[in-house]
Amino acid sequence: MIRVGIIGASGYAGAELIRYLLAHPEAKITYLASDSLKGKPLSEAYPSFLGRDLPVCEKYDSHNAIDKADIIFQAQGNGVGMRVAPHLLAKGRKVIDIPADFRLKDPEQYTQFYGAVNTAPELVAEAVYGVSELHPEQIASARLIANPGCYATGAILALAPLMNGAVELDSVIIDSKSGVSGAGRSKVDVPGLFCEVNEGLKAYGVANHRHTPEIEQELSSLTGQSVQVNFTPHLIPMNRGILTTAYANVRSLASTADLLALYREFYAGRPFVQVLDEGRQPNTKNVFGSNFCHIGGVIDPRTNRAIITCAIDNMGKGAAGQAVQNMNLMCGLDETVGLMNGAVYP
Amino acid sequence: MIRVGIIGASGYAGAELIRYLLAHPEAKITYLASDSLKGKPLSEAYPSFLGRDLPVCEKYDSHNAIDKADIIFQAQGNGVGMRVAPHLLAKGRKVIDIPADFRLKDPEQYTQFYGAVNTAPELVAEAVYGVSELHPEQIASARLIANPGCYATGAILALAPLMNGAVELDSVIIDSKSGVSGAGRSKVDVPGLFCEVNEGLKAYGVANHRHTPEIEQELSSLTGQSVQVNFTPHLIPMNRGILTTAYANVRSLASTADLLALYREFYAGRPFVQVLDEGRQPNTKNVFGSNFCHIGGVIDPRTNRAIITCAIDNMGKGAAGQAVQNMNLMCGLDETVGLMNGAVYP
Amino acid sequence: MIRVGIIGASGYAGAELIRYLLAHPEAKITYLASDSLKGKPLSEAYPSFLGRDLPVCEKYDSHNAIDKADIIFQAQGNGVGMRVAPHLLAKGRKVIDIPADFRLKDPEQYTQFYGAVNTAPELVAEAVYGVSELHPEQIASARLIANPGCYATGAILALAPLMNGAVELDSVIIDSKSGVSGAGRSKVDVPGLFCEVNEGLKAYGVANHRHTPEIEQELSSLTGQSVQVNFTPHLIPMNRGILTTAYANVRSLASTADLLALYREFYAGRPFVQVLDEGRQPNTKNVFGSNFCHIGGVIDPRTNRAIITCAIDNMGKGAAGQAVQNMNLMCGLDETVGLMNGAVYP
Amino acid sequence: MIRVGIIGASGYAGAELIRYLLAHPEAKITYLASDSLKGKPLSEAYPSFLGRDLPVCEKYDSHNAIDKADIIFQAQGNGVGMRVAPHLLAKGRKVIDIPADFRLKDPEQYTQFYGAVNTAPELVAEAVYGVSELHPEQIASARLIANPGCYATGAILALAPLMNGAVELDSVIIDSKSGVSGAGRSKVDVPGLFCEVNEGLKAYGVANHRHTPEIEQELSSLTGQSVQVNFTPHLIPMNRGILTTAYANVRSLASTADLLALYREFYAGRPFVQVLDEGRQPNTKNVFGSNFCHIGGVIDPRTNRAIITCAIDNMGKGAAGQAVQNMNLMCGLDETVGLMNGAVYP
Repeated sequence: MIRVGIIGASGYAGAELIRYLLAHPEAKITYLASDSLKGKPLSEAYPSFLGRDLPVCEKYDSHNAIDKADIIFQAQGNGVGMRVAPHLLAKGRKVIDIPADFRLKDPEQYTQFYGAVNTAPELVAEAVYGVSELHPEQIASARLIANPGCYATGAILALAPLMNGAVELDSVIIDSKSGVSGAGRSKVDVPGLFCEVNEGLKAYGVANHRHTPEIEQELSSLTGQSVQVNFTPHLIPMNRGILTTAYANVRSLASTADLLALYREFYAGRPFVQVLDEGRQPNTKNVFGSNFCHIGGVIDPRTNRAIITCAIDNMGKGAAGQAVQNMNLMCGLDETVGLMNGAVYP
Repeated sequence: MIRVGIIGASGYAGAELIRYLLAHPEAKITYLASDSLKGKPLSEAYPSFLGRDLPVCEKYDSHNAIDKADIIFQAQGNGVGMRVAPHLLAKGRKVIDIPADFRLKDPEQYTQFYGAVNTAPELVAEAVYGVSELHPEQIASARLIANPGCYATGAILALAPLMNGAVELDSVIIDSKSGVSGAGRSKVDVPGLFCEVNEGLKAYGVANHRHTPEIEQELSSLTGQSVQVNFTPHLIPMNRGILTTAYANVRSLASTADLLALYREFYAGRPFVQVLDEGRQPNTKNVFGSNFCHIGGVIDPRTNRAIITCAIDNMGKGAAGQAVQNMNLMCGLDETVGLMNGAVYP
Repeated sequence: MIRVGIIGASGYAGAELIRYLLAHPEAKITYLASDSLKGKPLSEAYPSFLGRDLPVCEKYDSHNAIDKADIIFQAQGNGVGMRVAPHLLAKGRKVIDIPADFRLKDPEQYTQFYGAVNTAPELVAEAVYGVSELHPEQIASARLIANPGCYATGAILALAPLMNGAVELDSVIIDSKSGVSGAGRSKVDVPGLFCEVNEGLKAYGVANHRHTPEIEQELSSLTGQSVQVNFTPHLIPMNRGILTTAYANVRSLASTADLLALYREFYAGRPFVQVLDEGRQPNTKNVFGSNFCHIGGVIDPRTNRAIITCAIDNMGKGAAGQAVQNMNLMCGLDETVGLMNGAVYP
Repeated sequence: MIRVGIIGASGYAGAELIRYLLAHPEAKITYLASDSLKGKPLSEAYPSFLGRDLPVCEKYDSHNAIDKADIIFQAQGNGVGMRVAPHLLAKGRKVIDIPADFRLKDPEQYTQFYGAVNTAPELVAEAVYGVSELHPEQIASARLIANPGCYATGAILALAPLMNGAVELDSVIIDSKSGVSGAGRSKVDVPGLFCEVNEGLKAYGVANHRHTPEIEQELSSLTGQSVQVNFTPHLIPMNRGILTTAYANVRSLASTADLLALYREFYAGRPFVQVLDEGRQPNTKNVFGSNFCHIGGVIDPRTNRAIITCAIDNMGKGAAGQAVQNMNLMCGLDETVGLMNGAVYP
């Protein structure tokens, strides 16, 4: 039984991790750290956990974390993980970091997009960027995972199969639409109020969102060339789900059938990525609450452009689900253990 | 391993049953019947099941059902179960009926509220009305369960502890609010359209809803006297959840603390019913996607009235979750097996 | 042309007032006060007003208000109006106060429910409680209106026709359901976040909500006897609308037809209150964005109880719409001027 | 006073037209035709019109329409207008057609996208495609208006200012997101149910949606060259609103400031189109229920691409609002008459 600790238990990502881990037959949650909930049960903040067997939340203490857990999920805000992880790793603990601390290999990009200096550059260099489907062997042997951003996960899964020369690299446009849980529970402001979000729809972070460098870094790594994209996130009045609509001018694909065949081959044997039949489009609703990813594709012969659509749950495959999938890989388990519970529909 | 069959797999209740049963370690779905999906995988209608291991749907045939399954969930529309169940029971199969065919002991009430004659009166007499928390022993030894209506489950769990003389029986008012999945997927009409439901709120079935006799039958059975209530259902623009707000004039309870103590004692040892602390109110969100039931209570000393609030997921404790809980009891398993996956929040 | 000033322009009630007044042919907005927006156009906070002709917001100054406006709407938080109104009234200005400062005639109740001493008791005594349909003559001759609370408006309109002896006064139960805009834009907390409200439903303020004394004061005044009620508000995942479901044991009404006849007679000639035909139930959606009120009623002959349902827009008839209706009455205009724009549907 | 008739009063577009026209000081609704509501008041289907002064609905009869109305809005389904309009025009009536019958100049395109032969090709040739801001003089002198599609209106307003050579014409991608009222009230199917739409998000009609030829026809007309675009519509769980996100590679624009200056100049003097300040993004919520259009723009200097975002209400500027604006132009009124009622917020 894997002993699991979670730092930042009171955020949405932390709570979702706990939901997944409670259903995991090989893991046991042995340590929960939360400054705001110290000395209290998690159900104080999340009554959805009433009646479940969980340790009381503690103020974070590295000795306790190291003592009680074999693997630790860092689910706090940006900037904490880079201070905490070195101590955990030094004592042989494995670490999966949910925020952005270890994602960007270029320290200048980190400073530019996060407004702070990254104080653990050697760990950034070591960390494996954890899109589970793309780097399973590296993840399996890693001690530190940079869990990808939610938008980045959707965009990378949507585009990875095309990074073999199938499209013009300078033509990639990523138009993403997300439910609002991605903003987290600690960001409490007027634009986050129900009345302001409901029956509304807007773009934000146009041409400067933080997930842009993450997407470009991974696509560039896949293709071996520098890739620059346009990435536009939008807020949708729903709790969960990201739909990524990606556009690229094709070079070598003749039809929708060819496109989908490429995707099927690329994701063969990866149970969480489902490539839909021609004529079908993914709906975020079909992956709500799950770790699945549904992908659809069309080639428009008039414009010679591929339109890829990709649905994930931003809290599942986009955060906690993928983190648990990575834990499975790191612990030598089948990647699906504890993660096959399907979407809650409707 | 219990071999499970489901008739009516393509409705919301059927799909929800399948979601629960796929997560059940002691059950295997061996038979799916659906006229509309015959010869097709369930994922044709519910892409949320893509990548899951399920039998192809068949047109219903009693021989196949009897051959392939030990226990059968009937999840079709009203009026089918009374024709199907006799054959299944005759061959030693256990049956859990989700619609209303076996709920009302009085055949005249059935005719009045469902507009048809009940053709299996002896099975109606035999069937156990399956609020799991109230009749666990009877359920355990039953071969036919009438699974309670969603509104009825919420109302009965909210009021059962008061049926010991604590309140004036002629003062009971039940004001229920439900998400719209209770209407099912086969009822397709203008009032069910997104645009008509969203940003709207209304009562319906005022003073004549079908769940009224079911509630009264059970409360009367619990108290040994004839109980008549006012039950008013309302439609809420959300998918899942029922909040029951019940009012009754108290006779023997002096304070909110006394009220909650009564509830805690009544539901002691029943893991799915959580009685909240004084000052807390249940939110349907905290039981979304789960089989849990959260109950809050207040005594208003000015009016000497108890106000009980009770949250369930109409698809979970109000339908499929309770059906699986009843299956567990009927099969000698712990009632929680496969059902402890918590609410999806947020 | 009536010169109108609004204090507290940046809240939801203020913005809604401005929306109504911009469509009013006899009124011109000449003064907008908002501390948070001083020196800025209102469209800074509400881009929905882009392209509309409005004065720039100012920091509140009584001289400017008195100089620029004939009638002033006070739409700030509780406790401000009692300090501001005396100066405005002293200079002959008419005042409509949207918060609760002048609603409760009993100063002890104000202290109990609002946690502060009311410093303008003589104005409280003078103020007319402005349910437009009940006191049109008093409103017409008033210089200070206490605009009723949103829940209180719905409850009072639902019950007023029964206060003539038709029901048992100690049997009144009011179960109200509201969209969340009633919480306002300045209350920014975790429970107000989209993700926390969406797909959720809960009661709050059970047996102690602030609108209870307001409802009881008005019902008592109508009936001439002390009335105590149970009032339970609920939060519904929608922006606008209150549905009030009221229950009372009837004394003198024999049928639903009698009940509805009573309501039709009571509200004859009041254009904003529409009594629905037997068998119809009001939907808040049908009054969304408007000053209308729809009422339905049923007598349950089994329990001898009346069930009244009443739909308003909490921002319209429940706040800004009724305030403008009161302004019309105070200014000698037809009460419908500028208010007949119908609900936005769907 | 303009006498106005509406055919197809019971659909969403018809009801929205009536809402706008009831607030129009120079128009009077004198004729309502609806097969489904013949002999009944509109409030039977739309209780939101209770208490409003409207003619009873009639079965459509061209003599009555011609007799009672000076201008007729055709708001029925596709294919009816081409049969009805010739008779109305022959008797000197003006016609505004809301569906697609007169939009596509190329009859083959009509057949391809609507599956039927257009039987009034000479009227198609005559009809003015009514984006009010682009062709006010032609509209003013027209007797037949093809009212643009909702998606098309958003896309064309977003891109029109760039059709002067500012962008590469073969690089245009239009990613649109719409609330679901665009599907109308008569299309009643499972995918339209609340439970299926709520908390879901999907693309549809990828690379083959009917509004594509309409957009291309208008953009080609503006630029004088054949323009082919990718247009991808998405369904958003909200009632109203379209956000268009358009991408194009720029040729002659150096900065976001230049881009916005171009838009401001292009739309100078057009009150319903508001170009937002740099750094601001439009939200459909800010135009909900109104005829306004908000546009934002960014140049990404890294990719040399313009990203334009454009918010309209699909029922307002995207249908009924623009239809009334066109009526104003055709009748010699200021285009804003009766249309300045602002968005309902929140």
